[in-house]
Order: sequence, then C-alpha cells, then structure tokens
Amino acid sequence: MAGLTHFDAEGRAHMVDVSDKPVTARLAVAEGYVRMRPETLDLVREGRADKGDVLGVARLAGIMGAKQTSTLIPLCHPLPITRVALDLTPDANLPGIRIAATVRTTGQTGVEMEALTAVSVAALTVYDMLKATEKGMEIGGIRLTLKEGGKSGRYEAGA
Amino acid sequence: MAGLTHFDAEGRAHMVDVSDKPVTARLAVAEGYVRMRPETLDLVREGRADKGDVLGVARLAGIMGAKQTSTLIPLCHPLPITRVALDLTPDANLPGIRIAATVRTTGQTGVEMEALTAVSVAALTVYDMLKATEKGMEIGGIRLTLKEGGKSGRYEAGA
Amino acid sequence: MAGLTHFDAEGRAHMVDVSDKPVTARLAVAEGYVRMRPETLDLVREGRADKGDVLGVARLAGIMGAKQTSTLIPLCHPLPITRVALDLTPDANLPGIRIAATVRTTGQTGVEMEALTAVSVAALTVYDMLKATEKGMEIGGIRLTLKEGGKSGRYEAGA
Amino acid sequence: MAGLTHFDAEGRAHMVDVSDKPVTARLAVAEGYVRMRPETLDLVREGRADKGDVLGVARLAGIMGAKQTSTLIPLCHPLPITRVALDLTPDANLPGIRIAATVRTTGQTGVEMEALTAVSVAALTVYDMLKATEKGMEIGGIRLTLKEGGKSGRYEAGA
Amino acid sequence: MAGLTHFDAEGRAHMVDVSDKPVTARLAVAEGYVRMRPETLDLVREGRADKGDVLGVARLAGIMGAKQTSTLIPLCHPLPITRVALDLTPDANLPGIRIAATVRTTGQTGVEMEALTAVSVAALTVYDMLKATEKGMEIGGIRLTLKEGGKSGRYEAGA
Amino acid sequence: MAGLTHFDAEGRAHMVDVSDKPVTARLAVAEGYVRMRPETLDLVREGRADKGDVLGVARLAGIMGAKQTSTLIPLCHPLPITRVALDLTPDANLPGIRIAATVRTTGQTGVEMEALTAVSVAALTVYDMLKATEKGMEIGGIRLTLKEGGKSGRYEAGA
Repeated sequence: MAGLTHFDAEGRAHMVDVSDKPVTARLAVAEGYVRMRPETLDLVREGRADKGDVLGVARLAGIMGAKQTSTLIPLCHPLPITRVALDLTPDANLPGIRIAATVRTTGQTGVEMEALTAVSVAALTVYDMLKATEKGMEIGGIRLTLKEGGKSGRYEAGA
Repeated sequence: MAGLTHFDAEGRAHMVDVSDKPVTARLAVAEGYVRMRPETLDLVREGRADKGDVLGVARLAGIMGAKQTSTLIPLCHPLPITRVALDLTPDANLPGIRIAATVRTTGQTGVEMEALTAVSVAALTVYDMLKATEKGMEIGGIRLTLKEGGKSGRYEAGA
Repeated sequence: MAGLTHFDAEGRAHMVDVSDKPVTARLAVAEGYVRMRPETLDLVREGRADKGDVLGVARLAGIMGAKQTSTLIPLCHPLPITRVALDLTPDANLPGIRIAATVRTTGQTGVEMEALTAVSVAALTVYDMLKATEKGMEIGGIRLTLKEGGKSGRYEAGA
Repeated sequence: MAGLTHFDAEGRAHMVDVSDKPVTARLAVAEGYVRMRPETLDLVREGRADKGDVLGVARLAGIMGAKQTSTLIPLCHPLPITRVALDLTPDANLPGIRIAATVRTTGQTGVEMEALTAVSVAALTVYDMLKATEKGMEIGGIRLTLKEGGKSGRYEAGA
Repeated sequence: MAGLTHFDAEGRAHMVDVSDKPVTARLAVAEGYVRMRPETLDLVREGRADKGDVLGVARLAGIMGAKQTSTLIPLCHPLPITRVALDLTPDANLPGIRIAATVRTTGQTGVEMEALTAVSVAALTVYDMLKATEKGMEIGGIRLTLKEGGKSGRYEAGA
Repeated sequence: MAGLTHFDAEGRAHMVDVSDKPVTARLAVAEGYVRMRPETLDLVREGRADKGDVLGVARLAGIMGAKQTSTLIPLCHPLPITRVALDLTPDANLPGIRIAATVRTTGQTGVEMEALTAVSVAALTVYDMLKATEKGMEIGGIRLTLKEGGKSGRYEAGA
C-alpha cells in the first residue's frame, strides 16, 4: 500500500513534485447527494418551473468551485481545467438531489479533487438555497466514480 | 413551510436583503465524516506521530475554507467571522475521520454555511492526502447540528 | 469641484481613511446594456424557454462579481454587502439586454462600485455566452442611476 | 449561425470541452471608454503631472483584472496569460479616457474575455478614482476589435 | 509571557474567538526595506521621472495585498480595513527602498498583520520589477513599529 | 545592465510578453528568517511537541501563498507550479526561525517570485502565531539563493 505521498521522509507536508510526469489527458467523475424531506424536494421541482432554479444556481456554483480547487485544497496542484459539467437530478426515492460532476484536463496531475470539489460546492449551494425551509438536510455519498489518465491508470468505483 | 427565499417573486435569484436584520451573536456547528478502510485510517494515526499530520493539514484547510464561503456559495452574504475551530477525530468504528466545525460571528446573517463549508473543505483535504492509498473513500454525513442567534432562533439536530 | 481624493497631497495613491465616517444605510443602483443583433437576441429569448438560461447565468455572475469588487478595484474599501439583485431584460429596440443592479449595505462607504461592478460582470458574462454567435456585441451605457446614504447624500441620474 | 455553446442539448450550463483543441498562439484586443465632463478630464491630465496618476492605477487594475477573468466569468476556462498591456489615453473630443487592452496566450481557448475584462476593470477603476468629482460618468463602447488564433480564425471589428 | 493563543489546550490550531472583544479604533504601522546595488536604485529614481514608476506599482500592490491578508494568513480574522497607505522612499545609504505601511480599522482585532502584509507584498513587487537587473536584492527589516487600540494597548517599537 | 523590463518605451507598466519563450524546466530556491527572543523560540520548540505546531501551520501557509503569487504581484505571469516545499528550522544562534522554499514548474517564466512569496507568507504566519508573545520580531534576509532554467541561465547567490 502506498504511504502518505503529501509528506516528505520527515513528515513535513509539501506539494508533491510532478515536474517529470508526462502531460496526458485526464478525466474524473465524482458524485454525491443532498438528502431532504419530500416537501422540500417538491419546492425544488416547482422552482424549476417558475419559482427559481435551485439546480441551475447549484450547477453554476459547482463549475466555479471546480476552478477554485487548488486555492481550497492546500497541497493540490493548480491546473487549467478543459471541461467541467454537472448533473443535478431530483430523486424521489432518496429523497433529494443527486449530483454528478465530470472534469477533464490535459496535464501532469489528475482532476479527482476538482470533480469532488465541484460536487461539494454544488451540494453546499443546494443546502444554502433550501435552508430557510429545512435545516436538517444532509450532504453525503461524495465519492470518486471514475478516473482515467495518468500513471495509476483507470479507476472505476464499484456500484 | 417557507418558500425559496433566494428567489424573488418572479423566480430570479438574488442575494436576500438583510439590511434591516439586527446585528446579533451567531453560532453554528456542523459535522461530517470521511469513511475509509481500516488500513488507511491506520496511516492517518501513525502519521500523527511522525509521518505527516493529515488531520493538522485538513484542520487548517477547513479554517481557511470557512473564510472563502461567500466566494464559493453564490447567494451567501459576506460576513466577518469571529471564530472558527475544527475537530478531526479518528473513529475506528466508522472507520474513518469524524469532522466537526464551530463558527461564530456577530452579524446580520447566520454562519451555517461557513460551518458546513469548513467541514466540506476539511473532508476534501483528508481525501486529497490519502487518495494515493485509497480512491474509494466516501465523504458523508455533512449536516448542521447546532445554530444559535438570529430571528429563527435555536436549532439543534436530533441524534 | 472636489480634487482627486484617492491621492495624497504628494500625488501618491492610497485607500482613503473612512475610519471616522458614520455607519449608515447605503444604496446604489447602476445600469448598462449589451447591444447585439436581433438574431442573437432571439437566441437568448429562446434559451430562456429551453435551450439554456443566458440571463440566469449572467445574473448570478453579477451577484458574485459584486462580492469581488474590493479585490478588483485597487483603492476600493472592502465592505459586507447586505443585498444584491440584478435585472436582465431583453429589449428588442436596443436590440440587446438591459442590465440593472441594486446593492445595499450598512457601512462607512457607499456601494456605487459594487453596483457598477455587478453590471459589468453580468455584461461580460452575457458576451461570453453569446460570442460563438456574434463577436461584434458592444457593452455600454454603464452608469450610476441612484445613490442614497452617506455624507454626499442622494444622487439620481437624469434620464 | 452557431447556437448557445455554453449549454448542453438540454439547456444546462457547462464549461465547454476544449480538451481536443490544439494549443495555438492567441491574441485578442478590446477597447472601451469612460466618458466624463471636460473639467473632470482636466483633473486626470493634471494628475499625470503631479497630483496622482489615475491612468497608472487603472492600467494596473486592468492587468490584474485580466488574471481574474476565469474567476469572474462562470463558464470561462482558466488559462495562463503570456502578455497583457493596456493603453489609457485622454481624448478631449469624447471627452474622457479611451482604453485598449491587448492579451496573448498560447492555449486551447481564446483570450477575448481576458481583454474585455481588462478594459472593464480599468474603466471601473477610472470611475472609482474620479467619482468624488463626477458621479455621472459613463462607461461604454466595450467591444472586441481584434482576435487571432484558434479554429474560428481572425476577427477584426469594423471601424 | 503569553502562550500560543492560536492553539487550543490540546495544541490544535484554531481561529481565536474574538466575538466578545469590543469594537474599537485600531491602527498599525509596519516598515521594511529592499536592499539593492546603487546602480539598481538609480534605475528606480530615473524611472520615477519617465521610464516607469516602480514605486507607484509597488505601492498599489501593497494596498491590494493588505486586503488579502486574511486569505493568506491561515488563522487571521477577516476585517473591513478603513485605511491603507504606503510610503516607498529611495534611500541612498541603504542603498535601496524603504517601505512603511499604515492601516486602520474599526473592529474586534488589530491590523498588525495587514500592515506587515502590505509591506511584504510591496517589497516583493519591487523585487519583481527589478529582478531582470539584479537578482541579489534582499528584503529585510520587516517589523511592526506602532500599534494602537485594543486591550493590549499601545505598542511602539524602539529605534 | 538591463533596463526596467516591466515598463514599455513610454514608461507604462505591462505584463511582459513571454509568448515566444520556450517552455523549460524551472527551479527557484529562496530563503529568509524571523528573528525573535530566545524565550519566544522556546515556545515554538515546545509547541512542536504538544502545544501547537507553529512551523507546520507556517509551512502550509507558504505553500498556499506560492499559489497566490500571480494574484498578489501585479505584473507576474500566472503559471502552474509543479512543486513547492518549505523548510522551517529553529536556529538558536539567530535566534529565530530560518525558512527556505523550493518551487518548480515547467513553463515560460521563472518561479523566483513564487519562492520568495512562499518564504514571505510563511514568515508572516510565524509572526501572526507568535505576536501575542512578542511584537518586536523581525522578518528579514529574504533573498533568492538559486535559480535554474530559462534564457538567463543558472544563478546562485554567494554565501
């Protein structure tokens, strides 16, 4: 099992040297959800029609959040993202909103953190817009589902 | 049940007017976790001793993340935080890391989003530092546990 | 006529001392437009229905941009905004999009720059989303239309 | 005519995938102005001599603003700018200040938004520094005048 | 002697609780210098005349840097600065540039870090603009010279 | 001797055009210190054991600060850093903390400013965490010690 790559031999945090890694196409997909009461979810659905587009605002926040990843995560390398897309889907069985984010780049490090950050910021934004209605919502299930490119190769999460 | 306060009568997103809300002491506590394999958790524990302080880095990221809340969340009001503290505790039963964040301010709006953002950024940072070891970690259980101050009064989540 | 308050007696730029100014309620309203071809404007209108909400994205960008005002404008004081709202209206006579931004705070300086920045960022975002269709769009008419609060009192632009 | 590239087939905003676009040399030039009263323009001119360099401050704000473009414009790709230069020229016929910005990069997307943002931030800064003298100034004429590089080729605005 | 206030009883970093501290007028003055060869200093002096205003650019960078203090310093409280001014003076005896920054606020914490950050960013900017000429410049002497307001009272550094 | 490259022929500040510079491996190492009383240094050393890790917090601040370099330094080019590491060492002879920062990238401009900024932000953070104990600390000796890559070649500071 790999050790803690973000620390040197003496346990000091550093931003790992990726200078010699090849520049390759990278892809990461992450997912998560915001669980809420059915009545709160109904508000979101109605909103889509005419009262206010909760999912549209959260999608944009996720896209913009992805661009702030290396500012937020201390040891994360800055890299120029070439694609970000988010899917926010109401799910009556949850009940709540399911979120998925896809991020691409051509670079020396992967974009897992960008995808996970996009999901997290979108989820926090959903919470913010609905908190006057329900404070007990829960954000969860945030995980990496797919990763391609780079030395460690393809990763796909089990269902 | 309240409606969607972040949208006006015609469904357009706006930053709600809080100009006339009184300036009061505000407190919010949020929690969450990062679930991982027992072997990964062992790495974190050993790290505290000498291989690298994963929890120390994540704690700092959470504190700094709290200060970026109004930059990340589109309709969130900027406000001067007067306190941020994070607790990150290894939990063998999870197994993983439990995170709690406490935020205070004296202002016109609450600090729920700051506390939830602190937890989220700390969790993402834990993921970042351990992802070379385990890609399947999951961030979850992010919710508000306590809120004090402001017109809507005290809120405490059920266990 | 007042001199250049942003420079000291020897012509050196500084952030003006507002320490002794009273904390009062402040309001500013600014406006502007993006002029485009009628066919481009048609795309925006159709988009509202189902192809993509250009105005919704630009509105959000304007709100978030207002929060970055003191980062962007070198000698502008940081202050906690208590309200931001933007109106984006298609105008077939322009033809194009008319933008208006309203900003409030309770503070020691006015929020003219925040309102003007909100309009500017919203206008740039409209341009960004439509530039694949028309590169010749023009952003103009950006001005302050109303200002209330503070020592200099009420200002209302003529029509 | 092209459609709304910043939205997917279902009208959801996304950051367009540029992963497969070639890395080429890109250039964009944008212009704009701040119109003011002749007496206000006189203040700017005198300032250059010894009372405070309005144009120097605005030029720097424009350069720094260009670097914030992808933070401000939601669906704009981050990219490493290789050059930014701004020209701010007093024009007695306007009367006011004419602004032009030139931006270069070697990348997968163009720098039109960076050039337009540089002009906008410089114009806002001119307004900020002169607003104690004249609140009625107007920012306008912001448009792309030249674009080179990339698949869509050369674009030059008519006079 | 006081202990390490930025850590709790168990040695965990936190942003100190200032919720109950009174809001008072605060002032801090800091200083520092950039030492360089006499020939490099000559370039700066000539520049003021017509080749480029190194000190003007550094002054502005210092002012804008002061506004980023709480983003840069992990445990620093955000607060709305009410004044920032910088003095940059060529000193042939150093030889080099002497920098002094004055910051004011009305708040619950002091502005020492803002003043020290303003000096540091101005010094780095001087270095950046002259590094093509001399790489061996040294930044030093950065210290707090005056502090007023708050419980700990007045502090004045010895000469 | 080179002139002021950050200004054009007419003395106007600009971000230098590096579009045609080759993309090469770049390295920069910078150093500096925070001088303090022996008793204050003792607090830092004890802290490492159990009262709070001053050096760990400052190291992280330096790493994150390096990523903000092009935001802070007006005419500095943005570039994707591929490595950042900081060493903070207590030195009883100073007495105080010695700081060294190493930064790498593969790009068109050097990373001197990133290394110097990392040292400066780490030093400011050390000051922030110890200022309740000693206000008279001094930050100094900030200089470039090594630079590799790029047209100007290798630079190594004398001892």
